[in-house]
Amino acid sequence: MTQADWIAVDWGTSNLRVWAMSDSGTVLDAAQSNKGMSGLTPDAFEPALKELVDPWVSAKTPVIACGMVGSRQGWVEAAYDIVPCPVTVQQLARPAVKDPNLDVRIIPGIRQMDPADVMRGEETQIAGFLALNTGWDGVICLPGTHTKWVHISAGEVVSFQTFMTGELFGLLSKHSVLRHSLSDDLNPAGFNRGLDEALSRPATLAARLFSLRAESLVGEQDPADATGRLSGLLIGAELAGAKPYWLGQNIAVIGAGALSKLYVDALATQSVQAMQVQGDRATLAGLTAAYRHFKE
Amino acid sequence: MTQADWIAVDWGTSNLRVWAMSDSGTVLDAAQSNKGMSGLTPDAFEPALKELVDPWVSAKTPVIACGMVGSRQGWVEAAYDIVPCPVTVQQLARPAVKDPNLDVRIIPGIRQMDPADVMRGEETQIAGFLALNTGWDGVICLPGTHTKWVHISAGEVVSFQTFMTGELFGLLSKHSVLRHSLSDDLNPAGFNRGLDEALSRPATLAARLFSLRAESLVGEQDPADATGRLSGLLIGAELAGAKPYWLGQNIAVIGAGALSKLYVDALATQSVQAMQVQGDRATLAGLTAAYRHFKE
Repeated sequence: MTQADWIAVDWGTSNLRVWAMSDSGTVLDAAQSNKGMSGLTPDAFEPALKELVDPWVSAKTPVIACGMVGSRQGWVEAAYDIVPCPVTVQQLARPAVKDPNLDVRIIPGIRQMDPADVMRGEETQIAGFLALNTGWDGVICLPGTHTKWVHISAGEVVSFQTFMTGELFGLLSKHSVLRHSLSDDLNPAGFNRGLDEALSRPATLAARLFSLRAESLVGEQDPADATGRLSGLLIGAELAGAKPYWLGQNIAVIGAGALSKLYVDALATQSVQAMQVQGDRATLAGLTAAYRHFKE
Repeated sequence: MTQADWIAVDWGTSNLRVWAMSDSGTVLDAAQSNKGMSGLTPDAFEPALKELVDPWVSAKTPVIACGMVGSRQGWVEAAYDIVPCPVTVQQLARPAVKDPNLDVRIIPGIRQMDPADVMRGEETQIAGFLALNTGWDGVICLPGTHTKWVHISAGEVVSFQTFMTGELFGLLSKHSVLRHSLSDDLNPAGFNRGLDEALSRPATLAARLFSLRAESLVGEQDPADATGRLSGLLIGAELAGAKPYWLGQNIAVIGAGALSKLYVDALATQSVQAMQVQGDRATLAGLTAAYRHFKE
């Protein structure tokens, strides 16, 4: 039976993922559930955690968590750090825990006052990426529901900007009139077409979106091509808006899935070669860095 | 009891509206139901219509209809006219009707091949506006779920472009993370701020949208101000994209409600004075023009 030196936790809006860790940062075991923050009342957090980690715990065990679990609607609010701020975590929040064998600490998110912006969870991936790439300077792109572009200099988060691109894709593909014209597949030629259109004329986005519907009414249209074009239009508009972040910069994309690959491909069309790192690897490295800080 | 010379019908996706008309174009009576096209199987159209118009009908009565009732999923498909095309209707589609007292005709929509675009219903409002303003040249804006900008010259629809702005507002205000930050009221100062932001940097739309959420997390934010800003951002981005349509043009906005007023106010900030006409008035004038054409 696995005995954890400490437990790493990524607790987001929809999911809870936990890892049994050795003191040196090796993963000994892993588990997950769908008990994300959004479905839990304040007193449901401890049982949801114990359900997964109980077999790994004997004596008092440190638990280091990141993500929406630290939001105002979470277990306990971990007050935001404010940019510019060091990538390494300074202060961990501590929820009330009944079980004496669990010593839970939550990593705070980061906020920016002007323009107003927030992140929770990404700061841990950023810290992990920097732990894996000491001294790295440049811009980190974290694709997702709310994609973030983060300017890193001398070990500090200098500024960042969030784009609702992923959420827009979800709304448009599931709830809008476009849902009739799309598929689960994505054609790269359609993606590149949408990308070009949006990069050259980002202001016409809402018209290009309707044209996806109109093309399927006026003639034949391959749904995978339309899906690619929708994705290309949205990511292209984002790249046009985020240009001050990526132009002439050293770029890293955190994430190894299909969405991150679209960002890397899109940046490549603009002659930007981005390095990629797996999201889970960054998360675990960031949680490990916070654990080391906690031990000191 | 009202006896109609003919019946005017505006049959959209969600609603059915009918008017008992005199031969000269006077409204004698009106009725409506929520039996829009999207909820009806092909054999349900005639009963839905009769339920409203039966009291007005004695001998064979012409019924002139516009809107989604003429789409492929409607009562009978009224094949699109193709731009450039005259504003006045050329050919009406005729569904199969069992009742010998109803002679139903449906006005076709208009399509554009490149860039692909379609309208159904708006062509009737455009024809009505032109019947009320003979010889008018310029650009007509029809705000709605799918706002249309239509270039009119010498009695013809020359080209048009549809923006999904209204649908985006609905998706974002009802289904996105922004729904927590909004209200039913709309603050004009917020609207003007969003308008300015989007007109000056339309590419950053997806980032500005997220900032609405972030501002409510980082500090105090008036929900009516956020709602105004959301509307201003989306309409501002549309105006930036539609600039070739409105810059230096004679502009009419069809619609007298709150949404149309936002467009008129937004255009005024760009030194464009738009004339406004009530939507129903344009619809009835267009249906009357089609009735006269049908009688000839």
